[in-house]
Amino acid sequence: MDIGLIGLGKMGGNMRERLRRAGHAVVGYDRNPDVSDVASLEELVEKLPSPKVVWVMVPAGDPTRETVEALSDLLGAGDVVVDGGNSRWTDDLIHAELLEKKQIGYVDCGVSGGVWGLENGYALMYGGSAEDVAKVQPAFVALKPEATDLGDFGAVHAGKVGAGHFSKMVHNGIEYAIMQSYAEGWELLEKVDLVDNVTEVFRSWREGTVIRSWLLDLLVAALDETPNLEGIAGYADDSGEGRWTVEAGIENAVATPAITAALFARFVSRQDDSPAMKAVAAMRNQFGGHAMKTEPPAGGDVAPD
Amino acid sequence: MDIGLIGLGKMGGNMRERLRRAGHAVVGYDRNPDVSDVASLEELVEKLPSPKVVWVMVPAGDPTRETVEALSDLLGAGDVVVDGGNSRWTDDLIHAELLEKKQIGYVDCGVSGGVWGLENGYALMYGGSAEDVAKVQPAFVALKPEATDLGDFGAVHAGKVGAGHFSKMVHNGIEYAIMQSYAEGWELLEKVDLVDNVTEVFRSWREGTVIRSWLLDLLVAALDETPNLEGIAGYADDSGEGRWTVEAGIENAVATPAITAALFARFVSRQDDSPAMKAVAAMRNQFGGHAMKTEPPAGGDVAPD
Amino acid sequence: MDIGLIGLGKMGGNMRERLRRAGHAVVGYDRNPDVSDVASLEELVEKLPSPKVVWVMVPAGDPTRETVEALSDLLGAGDVVVDGGNSRWTDDLIHAELLEKKQIGYVDCGVSGGVWGLENGYALMYGGSAEDVAKVQPAFVALKPEATDLGDFGAVHAGKVGAGHFSKMVHNGIEYAIMQSYAEGWELLEKVDLVDNVTEVFRSWREGTVIRSWLLDLLVAALDETPNLEGIAGYADDSGEGRWTVEAGIENAVATPAITAALFARFVSRQDDSPAMKAVAAMRNQFGGHAMKTEPPAGGDVAPD
Amino acid sequence: MDIGLIGLGKMGGNMRERLRRAGHAVVGYDRNPDVSDVASLEELVEKLPSPKVVWVMVPAGDPTRETVEALSDLLGAGDVVVDGGNSRWTDDLIHAELLEKKQIGYVDCGVSGGVWGLENGYALMYGGSAEDVAKVQPAFVALKPEATDLGDFGAVHAGKVGAGHFSKMVHNGIEYAIMQSYAEGWELLEKVDLVDNVTEVFRSWREGTVIRSWLLDLLVAALDETPNLEGIAGYADDSGEGRWTVEAGIENAVATPAITAALFARFVSRQDDSPAMKAVAAMRNQFGGHAMKTEPPAGGDVAPD
Repeated sequence: MDIGLIGLGKMGGNMRERLRRAGHAVVGYDRNPDVSDVASLEELVEKLPSPKVVWVMVPAGDPTRETVEALSDLLGAGDVVVDGGNSRWTDDLIHAELLEKKQIGYVDCGVSGGVWGLENGYALMYGGSAEDVAKVQPAFVALKPEATDLGDFGAVHAGKVGAGHFSKMVHNGIEYAIMQSYAEGWELLEKVDLVDNVTEVFRSWREGTVIRSWLLDLLVAALDETPNLEGIAGYADDSGEGRWTVEAGIENAVATPAITAALFARFVSRQDDSPAMKAVAAMRNQFGGHAMKTEPPAGGDVAPD
Repeated sequence: MDIGLIGLGKMGGNMRERLRRAGHAVVGYDRNPDVSDVASLEELVEKLPSPKVVWVMVPAGDPTRETVEALSDLLGAGDVVVDGGNSRWTDDLIHAELLEKKQIGYVDCGVSGGVWGLENGYALMYGGSAEDVAKVQPAFVALKPEATDLGDFGAVHAGKVGAGHFSKMVHNGIEYAIMQSYAEGWELLEKVDLVDNVTEVFRSWREGTVIRSWLLDLLVAALDETPNLEGIAGYADDSGEGRWTVEAGIENAVATPAITAALFARFVSRQDDSPAMKAVAAMRNQFGGHAMKTEPPAGGDVAPD
Repeated sequence: MDIGLIGLGKMGGNMRERLRRAGHAVVGYDRNPDVSDVASLEELVEKLPSPKVVWVMVPAGDPTRETVEALSDLLGAGDVVVDGGNSRWTDDLIHAELLEKKQIGYVDCGVSGGVWGLENGYALMYGGSAEDVAKVQPAFVALKPEATDLGDFGAVHAGKVGAGHFSKMVHNGIEYAIMQSYAEGWELLEKVDLVDNVTEVFRSWREGTVIRSWLLDLLVAALDETPNLEGIAGYADDSGEGRWTVEAGIENAVATPAITAALFARFVSRQDDSPAMKAVAAMRNQFGGHAMKTEPPAGGDVAPD
Repeated sequence: MDIGLIGLGKMGGNMRERLRRAGHAVVGYDRNPDVSDVASLEELVEKLPSPKVVWVMVPAGDPTRETVEALSDLLGAGDVVVDGGNSRWTDDLIHAELLEKKQIGYVDCGVSGGVWGLENGYALMYGGSAEDVAKVQPAFVALKPEATDLGDFGAVHAGKVGAGHFSKMVHNGIEYAIMQSYAEGWELLEKVDLVDNVTEVFRSWREGTVIRSWLLDLLVAALDETPNLEGIAGYADDSGEGRWTVEAGIENAVATPAITAALFARFVSRQDDSPAMKAVAAMRNQFGGHAMKTEPPAGGDVAPD
């Protein structure tokens, strides 16, 4: 099929390559002329046959919003815009409504796969009408992982507009919590003297255990590259999706304690000092005469409270 | 090799079978004469050549303790006892000391694999001296999963006595948290109208995603067997190992919020009614005149606090 | 001063009474003519001298929005609207902007005190310009608790528009977590055999301890009224403010694990069965042949994982 | 009454003073001769009339154990040992059994009050037989807070041996969680621009609110002493009691998420860098090419996962 692709960064650039390898005609546009196939959105749109399918792969928020707005002026009835970026699902509802006024279709697509996607395929979760999805289907087929002996996985029409990004958001929330799970286990094993080689313990878990997974494989790879993770800062950013998952849980009265624990651990990891713990230290000092900064209680004394 | 195996239940019985398939001579003993190869522990010990290796596969706590004590009377210098059950690692220290008085070696071995172990092999984490471990090595090799293209995993000499069960304990703690991670995501996806087919979303995640894992495969299998998990009670027991992991974290000042969240969710799942929430309801009623059981605030009223 | 008060439910009705006891001239309006002083908003506005001060005390969301919109048509430059309901602070920004177009001032005020407020006074946290706040000041003085030997507390000009409801929101978040704190302790003490009279333990804490508080007093009162809280359902609703506090934390990358724990406990308390725990049970069953509903493992068997 | 008091540190020294002010004859012993009334335990015991009551006020663990053992040699039938230190309740069972062999009674007593206890009285939670408690009762009466208009609080016979320390342990667990509650709220209010004066907001809460408490008073006092808590390290030690509370919860299958959140926050506050978050950072880097240390994703790019 013919497809326009806007945003040719680390993700978009690889996706263009994977689509082309599958025989599709991709017209790519990026603000950076060194990687762009065309000089403008207008040119991109012109080059596509109707019904035109344009895949947007730019950062969530304003960049995506502006691109969708620009496309609503350039495209027409029967065309389809796909947002493959990390947009919040609530943005999808706005984008779909905006495009619907011009009878332009809209499909939201959560894309997972990271730097491994080019070779292994991208996991895709998409939402939209059956009709709109059908127009994009050949691209989904090209981008998704190939079927294996185990079956044909990696792509799903999750539901209505928004369902793709919502599913991808939940995927990332789960991902946060699974990473936190391994991380807690790793810290505990590292802390005790009993266990001599924590990396080998983790490596052994790659087969036969209940917790074997791709994230485990990655952690072992990281431990092989950087024994004991020496020199890596205990600092983790968070994309919006972990936050949105917890917020979606709250809106729906669904408790997400493990996902939230993972999110909060990242928040705290980025603080030089914890304001909350300053307050705790200050209260302790008030009632107990606890040393503010930490000596153990003196010899024969009972620490008050 | 020749090996004695005590406890021929679901786990022990399958392990005997896998050892025999690998050509080892297993003398099995169980209280249940229908499955036992010998009539008594004495007979089991007699049938083994020296140095005798006896693998204990009975429930943790008293049954294991009593078996180890009985073996300390029956075995002699140079023999080795392996505890392959779900013992707490602190028990290993006691067992090793007890046996050491008779110069009997001791290896603790955490075993993972469940009902899949017979065919796929068991993941093994063991602790003990190099000398003792060497005597059991052929059995470990037979029980562990076979090497694959990816490598040779599934067995590790984790460290000193106790390190095997400690590692297995942490494995289970991680397992709790990973299960909780998927479970939270599943509940959230099920709750919203946006997503039409949650099972298909989970199935799609089996390839190309960051969160693909064996537990995910199992959850999809469960969803296929029981659509929407209808009829399954939201009730989860906990073996000791999740509790011990959190306790080990506490003793070592290691925060384990995701693992703890998973453990607490199980505790709460087993309560018909939450005493803590009775107390919360009672306090709310005192200050706010909140209805104890749940009507929304009346029409034009502002709910106090 | 003269003041209009819209919404005469449990909170508003008592506030009218407290304002009148302090000598203020209150014109109250409610949809319910039995408690209303006037027949319409128009009449309420007419009866007030300029600059008119109108206090809105109706449910958050649409009712407050509609009332503020109606007032924006009826009031004029120099008048002030106070929103004393449980609005989300983000609504305040919208309300203030809407009224500013007509040069009508806006003050948001979080009100705490519940059914005790009439006699003891209401705690007030308000936000807005110094000029607008000054016009409402006599009402704040009348509504707040009287000064005691300890000092003059209970009212604060917290900051800009929104700061009042934001502070009240955080107050409620803290309240959730404190209630949860006592509730956890109560459940634990009730659970163990060691402690004979849990109510007396809690009562004793009312003096000399670090955890003495008004909420503790209320819990003791509840235990006196309902020994062991027998018959009270372990079920707690949540107003929006706990949710908003966690969401505000997430937006600001501030970890709020105790407040979140309290919120999630309420969510779970309202479920007949936990979908998440159904998923956990289903996964356990897949790998371990764990009984789905709960028998302990059979006699001599080692539970797999 | 006559009473022996062992351990005259910050707590024990003040308690001797409060007992003497109430007219009791206290024989104090401390390793430090400058504060000790007698030169040895033997001398302390000799000076007391029978039945002798000896209150032990030394650090938990070995010091208390050794003192109790020494007293078991020096005391006789009908005498009573009180452990007023911060012992774990499980130690009480051991101490009581040890003393019972000599027919010496045992009472465990949790003591709260910190540096304020001398003037305001100490909150006391004690466990033991009615007979043993009766022998100590005059001391309890002297040490506890005086009755007020509100009632007579601050002392409770909580139950059997161990119930005193168990109740005090839970008290401290609750205390951790309440401090965490205020601390989270303080951090959030400090973080947002909207609120101009966080200290004044907290001060206002001292009257009329649902969350007024002694800990709130202390936090306001701390904020007055150290505006914005500038210079206080966000670092909090933990005594054993918070840990034991969570462990007791786990043993009894009682979820304590807020108390645990408070405990874990303290653990993390003491780490220069979080090992768990190193592991999370390492995993993120593996799948996403996420910068290990923190730049935002480059201009036009979509961050993978």
